[in-house]
Amino acid sequence: MCGVFGIYGHEEASNLAYLGLHALQHRGQESGGIVASDGQRLRSFRGMGLVADTFTAPVLDALTGSAAIGHVRYSTAGTSHLKNAQPLEVSFAQGQLAVAHNGNFTNADASRRQLEEDGAIFQSDADTENVVHYIARSKAPTLEARIVEALKKIDGAFSMLFLSANKLVAVRDAIGFRPLVLGRLKNAYVIASETTALELIEAEYLREIEPGEMVVVDGEGLKSSFPFEKRPPGRCIFELVYFARPDSRLFGRSVFETRKEMGRQLAREQPAQADVVIAVPDSGVAAAIGYAEKSGLPYDVGLIRSHYVGRTFIEPQQSIRHFGVKLKLAPVRATLQGKRVVVVDDSIVRGTTSRKIVKLLKAAGAKEVHLRISSPPNTWPCFYGIATPTRQELIAASHSVEEIAAYITADSLGYLSLDGLHGAAGDTGGKTYCSACFSGRYLTPLSA
Amino acid sequence: MCGVFGIYGHEEASNLAYLGLHALQHRGQESGGIVASDGQRLRSFRGMGLVADTFTAPVLDALTGSAAIGHVRYSTAGTSHLKNAQPLEVSFAQGQLAVAHNGNFTNADASRRQLEEDGAIFQSDADTENVVHYIARSKAPTLEARIVEALKKIDGAFSMLFLSANKLVAVRDAIGFRPLVLGRLKNAYVIASETTALELIEAEYLREIEPGEMVVVDGEGLKSSFPFEKRPPGRCIFELVYFARPDSRLFGRSVFETRKEMGRQLAREQPAQADVVIAVPDSGVAAAIGYAEKSGLPYDVGLIRSHYVGRTFIEPQQSIRHFGVKLKLAPVRATLQGKRVVVVDDSIVRGTTSRKIVKLLKAAGAKEVHLRISSPPNTWPCFYGIATPTRQELIAASHSVEEIAAYITADSLGYLSLDGLHGAAGDTGGKTYCSACFSGRYLTPLSA
Amino acid sequence: MCGVFGIYGHEEASNLAYLGLHALQHRGQESGGIVASDGQRLRSFRGMGLVADTFTAPVLDALTGSAAIGHVRYSTAGTSHLKNAQPLEVSFAQGQLAVAHNGNFTNADASRRQLEEDGAIFQSDADTENVVHYIARSKAPTLEARIVEALKKIDGAFSMLFLSANKLVAVRDAIGFRPLVLGRLKNAYVIASETTALELIEAEYLREIEPGEMVVVDGEGLKSSFPFEKRPPGRCIFELVYFARPDSRLFGRSVFETRKEMGRQLAREQPAQADVVIAVPDSGVAAAIGYAEKSGLPYDVGLIRSHYVGRTFIEPQQSIRHFGVKLKLAPVRATLQGKRVVVVDDSIVRGTTSRKIVKLLKAAGAKEVHLRISSPPNTWPCFYGIATPTRQELIAASHSVEEIAAYITADSLGYLSLDGLHGAAGDTGGKTYCSACFSGRYLTPLSA
Amino acid sequence: MCGVFGIYGHEEASNLAYLGLHALQHRGQESGGIVASDGQRLRSFRGMGLVADTFTAPVLDALTGSAAIGHVRYSTAGTSHLKNAQPLEVSFAQGQLAVAHNGNFTNADASRRQLEEDGAIFQSDADTENVVHYIARSKAPTLEARIVEALKKIDGAFSMLFLSANKLVAVRDAIGFRPLVLGRLKNAYVIASETTALELIEAEYLREIEPGEMVVVDGEGLKSSFPFEKRPPGRCIFELVYFARPDSRLFGRSVFETRKEMGRQLAREQPAQADVVIAVPDSGVAAAIGYAEKSGLPYDVGLIRSHYVGRTFIEPQQSIRHFGVKLKLAPVRATLQGKRVVVVDDSIVRGTTSRKIVKLLKAAGAKEVHLRISSPPNTWPCFYGIATPTRQELIAASHSVEEIAAYITADSLGYLSLDGLHGAAGDTGGKTYCSACFSGRYLTPLSA
Repeated sequence: MCGVFGIYGHEEASNLAYLGLHALQHRGQESGGIVASDGQRLRSFRGMGLVADTFTAPVLDALTGSAAIGHVRYSTAGTSHLKNAQPLEVSFAQGQLAVAHNGNFTNADASRRQLEEDGAIFQSDADTENVVHYIARSKAPTLEARIVEALKKIDGAFSMLFLSANKLVAVRDAIGFRPLVLGRLKNAYVIASETTALELIEAEYLREIEPGEMVVVDGEGLKSSFPFEKRPPGRCIFELVYFARPDSRLFGRSVFETRKEMGRQLAREQPAQADVVIAVPDSGVAAAIGYAEKSGLPYDVGLIRSHYVGRTFIEPQQSIRHFGVKLKLAPVRATLQGKRVVVVDDSIVRGTTSRKIVKLLKAAGAKEVHLRISSPPNTWPCFYGIATPTRQELIAASHSVEEIAAYITADSLGYLSLDGLHGAAGDTGGKTYCSACFSGRYLTPLSA
Repeated sequence: MCGVFGIYGHEEASNLAYLGLHALQHRGQESGGIVASDGQRLRSFRGMGLVADTFTAPVLDALTGSAAIGHVRYSTAGTSHLKNAQPLEVSFAQGQLAVAHNGNFTNADASRRQLEEDGAIFQSDADTENVVHYIARSKAPTLEARIVEALKKIDGAFSMLFLSANKLVAVRDAIGFRPLVLGRLKNAYVIASETTALELIEAEYLREIEPGEMVVVDGEGLKSSFPFEKRPPGRCIFELVYFARPDSRLFGRSVFETRKEMGRQLAREQPAQADVVIAVPDSGVAAAIGYAEKSGLPYDVGLIRSHYVGRTFIEPQQSIRHFGVKLKLAPVRATLQGKRVVVVDDSIVRGTTSRKIVKLLKAAGAKEVHLRISSPPNTWPCFYGIATPTRQELIAASHSVEEIAAYITADSLGYLSLDGLHGAAGDTGGKTYCSACFSGRYLTPLSA
Repeated sequence: MCGVFGIYGHEEASNLAYLGLHALQHRGQESGGIVASDGQRLRSFRGMGLVADTFTAPVLDALTGSAAIGHVRYSTAGTSHLKNAQPLEVSFAQGQLAVAHNGNFTNADASRRQLEEDGAIFQSDADTENVVHYIARSKAPTLEARIVEALKKIDGAFSMLFLSANKLVAVRDAIGFRPLVLGRLKNAYVIASETTALELIEAEYLREIEPGEMVVVDGEGLKSSFPFEKRPPGRCIFELVYFARPDSRLFGRSVFETRKEMGRQLAREQPAQADVVIAVPDSGVAAAIGYAEKSGLPYDVGLIRSHYVGRTFIEPQQSIRHFGVKLKLAPVRATLQGKRVVVVDDSIVRGTTSRKIVKLLKAAGAKEVHLRISSPPNTWPCFYGIATPTRQELIAASHSVEEIAAYITADSLGYLSLDGLHGAAGDTGGKTYCSACFSGRYLTPLSA
Repeated sequence: MCGVFGIYGHEEASNLAYLGLHALQHRGQESGGIVASDGQRLRSFRGMGLVADTFTAPVLDALTGSAAIGHVRYSTAGTSHLKNAQPLEVSFAQGQLAVAHNGNFTNADASRRQLEEDGAIFQSDADTENVVHYIARSKAPTLEARIVEALKKIDGAFSMLFLSANKLVAVRDAIGFRPLVLGRLKNAYVIASETTALELIEAEYLREIEPGEMVVVDGEGLKSSFPFEKRPPGRCIFELVYFARPDSRLFGRSVFETRKEMGRQLAREQPAQADVVIAVPDSGVAAAIGYAEKSGLPYDVGLIRSHYVGRTFIEPQQSIRHFGVKLKLAPVRATLQGKRVVVVDDSIVRGTTSRKIVKLLKAAGAKEVHLRISSPPNTWPCFYGIATPTRQELIAASHSVEEIAAYITADSLGYLSLDGLHGAAGDTGGKTYCSACFSGRYLTPLSA
């Protein structure tokens, strides 16, 4: 997963991009980068790790100009190299161009093979590089026309920002998998993956960039167009379940309130005889509060999240049970002791962490542990930009709810239904979201 | 403020000290250090910054031996130097000695002047060095006797660990300001500032080290004694209010449950006409849940804490309102919009942060903001180990509650009473805690 | 300027490349990189700074395989970016390819413009990237054929190494500006810019790679061919004057002996009434010894070179005369006091350093300073790979020898003649070397 | 070995100390430190590694004030810790005090034991700390008097600088083992181990600080006294042989000229039938030139010293013969091929390096190698500040010249005689130098 940020028309463009990326840091911690334009040329910096650790004042000062785009990238095993950090920056026949991409192309391999056959060289592993080749090879006269021509060759998910010396272009695929929002800060336009980035820099939220929309910002202002074939929308419901920041407004909805409604619906569908409702922090908190509200059970804190996780730890030789989870989560005995506990989490992937959490709660005195998940069983991998394990690794792909409950040693386990999820997300027909990770109904053709 | 950890009798002593310090990291982020003994000699490493960033596997591997003590130190302006990092390690007539200290000596300056008059040299600014001089100058035959002789010259607060080549000594002052707990891991004894460090390494909690107690662990096992003049106890109530980790068991009580009770009592004393109760995360969460429970108002999340705070940020030139607070806390509009909000925090120091939070909540749509504080007005500085500003900077020292409410722009402001606080902490007479920061009743003489 | 190193057929390929680059470090200190092949895939690491500072044991261990190429790059102002560090590594239709380049293309700009017109994208500023595009766009069936086709489109200087998964290719342009030598270490072939790299790893020196030669090493052994149009050779005489390491064998000649002969010839052409001959260390030492030998004057040490130069220094506010030179060179008063001194240097570029040296010698007691330069006046920039200033900055391009002598405050100044230089380098007709930097007679067309 | 630098009365004191330490870097590369005084308080910085790598502009800027002392320390195995870096800085009854020490105390262990018995604590392994304790324990009224009282308890070698808030004190032991010179820069006094530090900052050389002299510089100017019992001088002759920089003026003599004279005398005592004289660079160059001059043989360069030594190298698995030496020294075949070579070095310690060098020269074509050493056989360890191996490790302590020649595979081996050495150093009676490392005649009692 990734986050993107762009700004055009503000003298502190790179500094605001830096803050915007910080607000989007939850969307990717592997690497971060900013490319700025002063109207004549692009200057860039990319580094591994967190934005606040990578960028220094002299680095930002050198990224002069009133337009900038930035990118944060999620760590995926095996390709954690600086060469894959974005924005990608190249020069081609029309000058310099930088690209920041959130999403995933489903025909990337075939497309790359074809480009290589046609004489292209690749310097990264990222599918984003395909688009830049198509743009460079296009004969269309304008950058916008080249971008459209290039993206028409692409299947899959993309919310992308392009920066040339004097133009910022934002594009969202016709299905609209990944979010993208438009804001305004004085005379500048701001585009970001989530509204939380607008909030931090005090930009006004204008609206979503629509599925299939292209927005071009330059010295003459903002122009919007819909150059791609219209398709039924399919926004990623997992962004609402887990990925987005709870304070963000996503797809026109409050993430926090939507998660609370998922919790309420979960309480309706999967009630439990219990004394208290707790969350797996932080992602389960909203749903747990909703569950508590609807069930009439008290909400309390049963697990404390460490402020110092996210770093590498040196493990001891001796086996400490549930070591990884214990570094991150500490149980509150006073909340748990002798209680029948409903614990709410957003999803179960492999089941190993859930198992550790259940055991941790019981070791801290919980009499019963009833795990409630605010989404349906996760049974299919995502090909649209969320890093998920293979189907083989998804425990729900091969095990029944009862088998999973037994494995994780929970006294009961209950998932939210797919209809319940869509309902909580405001879509009773199940048509406006992509929920392929739960249903296997992928919205684009998948190539090998 | 600081945290200490000691272990004797475990082959992975330094590695467990590293984990123990990680669990105590909230007690000090400026520097961390570990000294280990292999029975013959001490080896040490100290560094600036977080334990997980400072210690590497080769460093830990070099700290061989089955006994170790560690220390994390809180950043206080102006003395942030490696030379002040602990454990302090010296050699003297009886060999090598390392010391880790949580607390503060109230007669440190006079004591240091006297030692210097007597020919002592000092290499740090820390009052801890005084004790080591007294130990070295003692003519008593054993290390324990020298430690007792030295500490009898000291006024103030200390929970201290001493490590020699073959002995671990833990001492707590007779008033017992700072916490110190004893645990057991297989054949090893473990001593730490808080139980959360025992939990992480799966050591069994045995009991508090009592005020005035000295515990000596060596090859012959554990010996306890009470070498100091008995005094009425005065455990630091601010540890319960704010400082300790909520999952810890402190002074024999659950921190989380105690904070919840503070919240309940706060609701009794300072009710509010409101729609929702939220917390300033993370320290206000327990009290907010208690407040909600007692008041009958719903608890909800109105502020999201960033996972990426605690780092240095490059500020933009343009004024972003409430910049510092916004990097750390993001408002949840869905929770706040049009609501009368009770926001619960643990304390107000200078008032500037509270003011920013109130404004942030109103900017996000809150109709009214009623700030409730789960402790009394903070009117006196602490001389017993908690870094507080001078009296001049404490807003409550010079302003009435009404004046503070006006300054922070809250619609109402209510503090927990001192009696209420003591009651919530299980001490209705107010005698077993030090609450000098609220009352000015210091439990030791204060020298210039 | 740059240095290249390649090895095929040794299980410690990357480790030997690391040592080879260390031996070639004088050819470039800005950045260093190694790409290794294990027969299946390439792995690479590039970093800014010295090889010994950049590469660590874990990094080298990760560069597995029995073939490797490496590169060190010279710092040229304005393009000191990691993206310009080599070897360049790409994937294209035939798989992965890495390139290390010493030299400079004279038609690089036009070539790049044409490639961009044809849809190519560029990710660096380096002309080396042009070649990779030509290779990728070639329709020839083998890598060798594509390399030849690509390089035929290039004007200028190149000694280049290419590494694919299973093949090492070395090519030298038909004029042979930059050096390239072939060696053998057990069953492995080694190719390097200078013999000093062979010496360090104890590889046997076989011969020069000839101007216009292509050498291909793979599992079947070594094949040599001459695919380019034959041209009169023009090896860079400035490598012999200054650039190469004195212990190297270059263009079939001993660099040290050649420099000594330049000194002897300089003594014949430019005698001086003096008491002692000293060198500007280290590059002037060989010529100074030759000068002393022929002139009959004693050779002595008048300037000591610091071992700790090459680092960045913090300058004091107060003006220290000749600060930069003094950090690097210290005068030996005992050698200079009251003496008429001949000081031998290899060249004068801007004249500022020479002026500082002359003043330094006089301040240390030299009665007269006679500067002798072991090459002709440097009047033209190099377009074949040596970083030289523009013509405007070359003092000899616009000033007579007398004017230069006056500027640098020398009592006399004498340059070696062009014929004398060629004679010392074994070429009495002036035909086998490129000496364009002295004569302006460039051996290829120069495009804008 | 170490180097010291002090300055009093210059507004750029710490910056000039930084430069002075750079000029003295050859005297110690393990760690460097500077303490500056602004008249009120001392500020310090110490770090591991080279001065130019450790100190940054912000660090120097923070070391405000017009007085400063600095120190560079030589790496001795096993005690390479920051805590041993100097200047040592403490506070005591008279305020702050910093100390920089070159030399070694021969009664350090007994002295430390006694101090510990008397209640002192030690925070480093350095004998320097003993002196500070004696100063702190003195009852004398002035700092100078305390320093004298303290140093009278010390046996051994010391050239020391002390800095208090308003005073700079320099002391040299009565025998005068280690050098110390006095200079002047405008209104400031400068004190340094060698004149090369004065030269770099353009301070005027005034004179040696004499053996047994104490110099005090403060607001009232400079005062000199001789507070110690007068003793026959014994300046370290090995400083002249090897340690000092050749451009320095040491003990009133030119180091370079003295070494040349050693070479001339060596030629008289140990002639050789040979074709050429070369040096082991850099320390053997001066003696080689002297040897060539007196013998009538030509001086030439047979070994090139790498500019990039001094860094840590990753060794290959395969055995490269003489690996360590080859990284540092490269043979010049043209000089050596078929020749009978006299190679001049300053000393032989263990013999392993000499053996590698001889083999390297022969592998590069030398027909015969005649090793000449410009000092007598090194048969005794130094207890006065030069890091030497134990007697067991000194090859000349247990082997005859013939046996050493056989071990190092030289065709002949000749040492300079002790009388010859003293003569070259201007002392025909052998009375004004300490040459204990050659003779075993130690000038002070040695305690266990």
